[in-house]
Amino acid sequence: MYENRIDELRGKFQDFGIDTLWIVRPENRRYLSGFKAPDGGLTESSGSLLITFDKALLITDSRYTTQAEKEVVGFEILMQKRGLVETLSKALKQLGAKRVGFEGGYVIWELFQEVNDRLSKQSPPKELVPLSGVVEEMREIKEPAEVEILRVSAKLMSDVLGRVIADLELGQSEREVAWRIETLIREQGADGPAFPPIVASGPNSALPHATPTERTLRKGEPIIIDVGAMVDGYCSDMTRTVFLGEPSDDVKEIYTAVREAQISALQSVKPDMKTTEADSIARDHISKAGYGAYFGHSLGHGIGLAPHEKPTLAPLKPRPLREGMVFTIEPGIYIPEKGGVRLEEMVILGRDGAELITTNKDFYSF
Amino acid sequence: MYENRIDELRGKFQDFGIDTLWIVRPENRRYLSGFKAPDGGLTESSGSLLITFDKALLITDSRYTTQAEKEVVGFEILMQKRGLVETLSKALKQLGAKRVGFEGGYVIWELFQEVNDRLSKQSPPKELVPLSGVVEEMREIKEPAEVEILRVSAKLMSDVLGRVIADLELGQSEREVAWRIETLIREQGADGPAFPPIVASGPNSALPHATPTERTLRKGEPIIIDVGAMVDGYCSDMTRTVFLGEPSDDVKEIYTAVREAQISALQSVKPDMKTTEADSIARDHISKAGYGAYFGHSLGHGIGLAPHEKPTLAPLKPRPLREGMVFTIEPGIYIPEKGGVRLEEMVILGRDGAELITTNKDFYSF
Repeated sequence: MYENRIDELRGKFQDFGIDTLWIVRPENRRYLSGFKAPDGGLTESSGSLLITFDKALLITDSRYTTQAEKEVVGFEILMQKRGLVETLSKALKQLGAKRVGFEGGYVIWELFQEVNDRLSKQSPPKELVPLSGVVEEMREIKEPAEVEILRVSAKLMSDVLGRVIADLELGQSEREVAWRIETLIREQGADGPAFPPIVASGPNSALPHATPTERTLRKGEPIIIDVGAMVDGYCSDMTRTVFLGEPSDDVKEIYTAVREAQISALQSVKPDMKTTEADSIARDHISKAGYGAYFGHSLGHGIGLAPHEKPTLAPLKPRPLREGMVFTIEPGIYIPEKGGVRLEEMVILGRDGAELITTNKDFYSF
Repeated sequence: MYENRIDELRGKFQDFGIDTLWIVRPENRRYLSGFKAPDGGLTESSGSLLITFDKALLITDSRYTTQAEKEVVGFEILMQKRGLVETLSKALKQLGAKRVGFEGGYVIWELFQEVNDRLSKQSPPKELVPLSGVVEEMREIKEPAEVEILRVSAKLMSDVLGRVIADLELGQSEREVAWRIETLIREQGADGPAFPPIVASGPNSALPHATPTERTLRKGEPIIIDVGAMVDGYCSDMTRTVFLGEPSDDVKEIYTAVREAQISALQSVKPDMKTTEADSIARDHISKAGYGAYFGHSLGHGIGLAPHEKPTLAPLKPRPLREGMVFTIEPGIYIPEKGGVRLEEMVILGRDGAELITTNKDFYSF
């Protein structure tokens, strides 16, 4: 599996004008090598890959070498002792690299400068070549084995969310609900949540990325629950807006607009449709209902080793949807100070359209 | 508080040769503005600050504007509609900025290029000036209010870890123990863990950054538990190596070497000592015991809004320790395939030396 991916990548070296590829983004690193270590925050890398036409190296430090030796096959493991820049420059010299592709959308400006500085002083000098989204685009189209894990991840999350919603009670705090979700996700055997659960009630539901608070659930108010699990590295992501008691007519109107927008997108997406077109199908629906100004985020995003990845279904940057993509469809309407509604499903794009892999039964009613 | 910090920063503009400062790093953003939103992963920013001599702007998107209005005082809030680059360039034009400082150690290469491209085309053209660790260095010295929160965070974590260690039993899995720690951290009212807990038993303890597995705790083996809580945004971090039953003589020897190295560093650190000297006090001790090759990481790190921040106590890059710094002291010895020992405390550096704020009673015995 990893070998095939690396071969595919090597096949692109000539087009990119490179002889070596340097990978730092953790999901790309895992996708290409199987090395599972996450980074300790953005500026604390746990490893780099160097791939040439005939060699593959994993550079890591003493904290991770034993783990790397267990998890990674087909890569030579190089332990950095005096920092990444030092080890990377020496390895590139030994490999005889000339033009080294790097992840322009991930490498920090300062790291680029330091490496570039070292490489330009070598003889012969080496050049860093910025690449954008190369491995990310391979990751967009899921292999059958990846689709199966994503199904498991989506199913696990749907089951957990179903239980949590069934047990919701007036007076529970957002934090209690969020915590119950995290607990159940782990108890079901997931690696953990894919991101911190969002539970946002009443006016908090107007904040699309609310952090759960001590606020308690009240009658008739919208309660947005946006959750994801990670199973064997693969993420799920789904959102429901639910009510304890009947919501106001205003909220019902918003809910209906969001749900209809979502259904129209779910029924329309198909291979070769532009991401922008998919977005506008849902967005036009919401605009016609009079809420265009209150749908401030994109319609959806790819999902896999990262909770948010390519493709992005948004009003800008059109790209074609492809068979084998897995993404979310999640329109929302948010009225500041009052409240909001978001509904999110995960789909696999098949030849004939979207296959839902999160379950929606029983959730969509007042 | 925020105003003072911003004034201090403005006082440095002339030295840096800038008239405007662009901030993206979430901890720096929170430190200067009070805006608490985390980033949704490395490449999904929830906001940027722009600070000039007389103005302060927070650029964010529709997901966060309501939250920003609640949390942030003294900043004008600007909602980005067509992406950060667009809004940022326009705002810089309106502000009449000429030389714009940016976080070279945090901004991604591609984002730098895009912004630079736009700014260089404006008339008059604007220049991006890389700065390194400016706000990070302010954050190194904790204000009294920050020290108080760090005390609370360290105390909460110490209490939780004490309970968990008291209840450890043969046959529990690493994951169960990790999960119990996370549960207790939340139950005690923390925001959550500062990082995923490490529970590594037997040979897994040779992996300094192990992920908890289904492996169950066995008699006499080292069990490394490395945990931290986040309280009101401020992190704690501590590590114990414990045993159920008596460890082997080899392990006792390692443990004693690590503990003695730690004590010597705890007793020696004081203001104006170089970070490299602090590191070498512990490292020399471990080397003399014959384990120098097995202590592969640095001695410690600053801690505050981020679990790892400046200063770094390591063999390279000497910088002076200062009164008011809060950092960890965490030597370790790791024998591949066999096991390891790490011991970590958090200290506040006072005029006369280190004050321990994690509690160590009852833990240091076999």
